[in-house]
Amino acid sequence: MSRMIEARNPIGELVTGRQWDQLRDALRPMHPSDIADVIIEQPTETEGIIFRLLPREKAARAFAYLPPTEQRHLLDSLSNEQVRHLLDEMSPDDRTHLLEEMPAEVTRELLLQLDPQELQAARKLLGYPEDTAGRYMTPKYAWIYPDMTAAAALDKIRQTGKGKETLNWIYVIDAAGKLVEDVRLANLVLAPAESNVMAIDDPELVSVRATDDRESVLKAFEKYDRTALPVTDDRGYMLGIITVDDVLDIAE
Amino acid sequence: MSRMIEARNPIGELVTGRQWDQLRDALRPMHPSDIADVIIEQPTETEGIIFRLLPREKAARAFAYLPPTEQRHLLDSLSNEQVRHLLDEMSPDDRTHLLEEMPAEVTRELLLQLDPQELQAARKLLGYPEDTAGRYMTPKYAWIYPDMTAAAALDKIRQTGKGKETLNWIYVIDAAGKLVEDVRLANLVLAPAESNVMAIDDPELVSVRATDDRESVLKAFEKYDRTALPVTDDRGYMLGIITVDDVLDIAE
Repeated sequence: MSRMIEARNPIGELVTGRQWDQLRDALRPMHPSDIADVIIEQPTETEGIIFRLLPREKAARAFAYLPPTEQRHLLDSLSNEQVRHLLDEMSPDDRTHLLEEMPAEVTRELLLQLDPQELQAARKLLGYPEDTAGRYMTPKYAWIYPDMTAAAALDKIRQTGKGKETLNWIYVIDAAGKLVEDVRLANLVLAPAESNVMAIDDPELVSVRATDDRESVLKAFEKYDRTALPVTDDRGYMLGIITVDDVLDIAE
Repeated sequence: MSRMIEARNPIGELVTGRQWDQLRDALRPMHPSDIADVIIEQPTETEGIIFRLLPREKAARAFAYLPPTEQRHLLDSLSNEQVRHLLDEMSPDDRTHLLEEMPAEVTRELLLQLDPQELQAARKLLGYPEDTAGRYMTPKYAWIYPDMTAAAALDKIRQTGKGKETLNWIYVIDAAGKLVEDVRLANLVLAPAESNVMAIDDPELVSVRATDDRESVLKAFEKYDRTALPVTDDRGYMLGIITVDDVLDIAE
């Protein structure tokens, strides 16, 4: 009987048995669209853990194959108590070995879904260790595309800027989601209307990684005299911003 | 001989004799335009000390009667080593008794003339005690008029905003020089082009007095979570701004 269930539903069995290595091996050869099908078939509690075990590149592609409502289910699953518990109970070695950083677009969606208090409670949810930038970032930042003029950028900020954590810094993000520049709103306002946002005279881009620890984030704030800093994954994809208030909270 | 000089030049004699009370009494009944004439007649070293002994209201009016080049002479005199020395050697009682806050427009001109290092060196020049906001303010702020639209305000900022200490906060100053509001640049950008700058939804005005001590300035920064605060004289006339960096320097 147990065998039959295993044969019919090996993925679910591997989750139930906490057989993470085997589960990862079972998923490895599968095509992202097939993995998307597996995720759809699994109960909500299982979806999230499967997704977290995927290598980042494959996770990103599988996520893209999911229809919007299933993407929503997956995000719910990732913030689900049971999934968090499963991730929490992994040994630190297993965690390092098995879990890569999540795809940036999924992290951003999760950040949008959870408020900062929930995020801090959902400790290992994003996979970032305690006292790292990833634990404190917010997705409420204003961004523009690199091919925009100053006038177009100001229009976009006018339309989307309400409720952002700060508008003093605007982030230039390419179509793939990579952070390519940061621009002071003041310099956008001072620039001639038709100038390209990438050509505006402005301090160099400064960013931190989500995995950066408290000390290096504090140093970046001090060194570059900023009130907000963008946070990226280790490939430079934009995840969120962290404000100086958040860092001062960290420092307490 | 001495009597003759005194009769011909009693003001100069009173300065030479450090007879501050008598000098003040001699100036009191005079019309501001006559005081302006006296200031023009006196040597540079004396101009500043006469001006400093005038009650603020009369000083402001006398200053307005001076032609531009004489206003410049007076400002030079106020930052002159000898005048500063005379002010420095007054007893604290005399200083309290004799010296009122300078007219806001003169303070602003002096701030524009001296860089922050000079200002800190010219210790008693502005009459503000050590460790008060007046010692750390800068005149490099962006300002607009209360009757402007958001679009007109942004135009003015575009034309005048270069080289300001910050453009994140814009100060609304009336024709008399009073600070009436502060507006985030972000909210100016978000506002409909035709809305009046005074009608923009924005946090309440927060300002400090030039005579406020370090502790209350620090408290204001913390309580209102600002990176810059406007500094006024005790009647609310705009003098300059103080940035959070300056306060952190104070705190060291």
